[in-house]
Amino acid sequence: MIERVVLVGIGTGSLGHMTLDGQAALRSADVILVPRKAEKDDLAEIRLKLLERAGVSARVAFFDYPVRDEALPYLERVERWHDEIATRWTAAAGDAAEIALLVWGDPSFYDSTMRIAARLVPVGAVRVIPGITAVQALTAAHGVPLNTVNGRILVTTGRRLRDGGWPEGAESVVVVLDGECSFSRLTGQGLRIWWGAFLGMPEEILLSGPLDEVSPRIVEAREAARARHGWVMDTYLMRKS
Amino acid sequence: MIERVVLVGIGTGSLGHMTLDGQAALRSADVILVPRKAEKDDLAEIRLKLLERAGVSARVAFFDYPVRDEALPYLERVERWHDEIATRWTAAAGDAAEIALLVWGDPSFYDSTMRIAARLVPVGAVRVIPGITAVQALTAAHGVPLNTVNGRILVTTGRRLRDGGWPEGAESVVVVLDGECSFSRLTGQGLRIWWGAFLGMPEEILLSGPLDEVSPRIVEAREAARARHGWVMDTYLMRKS
Ligand SMILES: C[S@@+](CC[C@H](N)C(=O)[O-])C[C@H]1O[C@@H](n2cnc3c(N)ncnc32)[C@H](O)[C@@H]1O
Ligand SMILES: C[S@@+](CC[C@H](N)C(=O)[O-])C[C@H]1O[C@@H](n2cnc3c(N)ncnc32)[C@H](O)[C@@H]1O
Repeated sequence: MIERVVLVGIGTGSLGHMTLDGQAALRSADVILVPRKAEKDDLAEIRLKLLERAGVSARVAFFDYPVRDEALPYLERVERWHDEIATRWTAAAGDAAEIALLVWGDPSFYDSTMRIAARLVPVGAVRVIPGITAVQALTAAHGVPLNTVNGRILVTTGRRLRDGGWPEGAESVVVVLDGECSFSRLTGQGLRIWWGAFLGMPEEILLSGPLDEVSPRIVEAREAARARHGWVMDTYLMRKS
Repeated sequence: MIERVVLVGIGTGSLGHMTLDGQAALRSADVILVPRKAEKDDLAEIRLKLLERAGVSARVAFFDYPVRDEALPYLERVERWHDEIATRWTAAAGDAAEIALLVWGDPSFYDSTMRIAARLVPVGAVRVIPGITAVQALTAAHGVPLNTVNGRILVTTGRRLRDGGWPEGAESVVVVLDGECSFSRLTGQGLRIWWGAFLGMPEEILLSGPLDEVSPRIVEAREAARARHGWVMDTYLMRKS
């Protein structure tokens, strides 16, 4: 029976993002659960390579992601999906009392692994090791501060940006989970953008400048990347300039 | 003359926050600049201990922080102060072409080291290595997600929160740079808080719960910690519950 869960934030694809805490936790883990194949991307394979390169020799147990029941309404569908993943963790763990999982970026940042772990053990039995987020990989790669001096930062999703436009009174805006280039609807407002795809990975692409100028180039680069790799992950920061 | 600057995010006081990239950059640095004494806290000493424990043997050069000219208006005062720090870096660097600095947390997150470096070299000559922020140390320690499912996150300062109250339409609100317990003005609104001081350090203190209940306990714990150590650094996350 699973008694303890360790969630290790591994950063966004580069072994260099791994923290000393993360490395130590993986090295001392009883068993590390790894999804056999992520849904649309190569992240499962990246996780295995990372373990190897980090010198981790713990037992690895695989689990398959269940299929989402598209007939259900969104929130219920996600709940049932998380329930089912928790069940599969238990099966994969065998008799291990403690399991460790590699979480992309930081486990606290737009990730559901913590919510799945909460189905199996009380919150005090989950150890979370923070990791470098895609947003930090973005600002570091561009050499740009996330905030203006004493300014506010708003993190939002592509959908929220699409539905609401430039958020009223916002200063620095970060967008994650945008499958549709929602930035391209915000031209003509004097915005500047810092965009990145595959951050921390060998395929990393960076583009920045006045949104009105670079927006079409980003849309194009994103399409080309998706065509080449079959998937793309991107995030961006925008500010009034 | 300084030609390249490496800014290494070191996390918030725990060696375990160091990333493999950060460790490698410090180990291969020509010279590492360390402030001789931070203004009000023990951070200079923590930096030296961290270098030692991380097995870094690069040359360390010290510089003193200049005094801020309180007669100047705020923004100009900060600008002149940064100019003066850049001058002192140059003096401390001697004939080293590349300098490295240890930056608390993440260099992109409410920190001015990047802006000081920009006075000496073009942006392309600054290498930024992301680090774990105080906010990530906070959510990891509490085992709490930073955002609700697909929700927005607003990061703001104590002053902005004090002046503006609970930000209109906000979901998850993170507060940094709050010297005055601004959360205590937000009782009676059904908020929940996750608070932490000295995160990542041996003195770490965590408190969480309904704001109306825990607010006085946080104020008290914060005062006691400040009395004991002479300074305190804290941050918190709030959500409507
Ligand atoms: C489900 S969230 C996970 C975030 C992750 N926990 C983190 O801390 O970065 C996935 C979103 O993060 C962003 N993202 C994650 N990895 C990325 C990468 N390597 N490059 C660019 N964006 C990335 C994208 O916006 C993507 O839609
Ligand atoms: C000038 S900002 C620097 C932030 C830093 N660059 C980071 O990434 O965490 C300082 C603020 O960060 C927060 N902070 C930094 N270190 C902290 C710690 N160890 N515990 C709690 N809060 C911390 C506090 O809100 C403090 O006022």
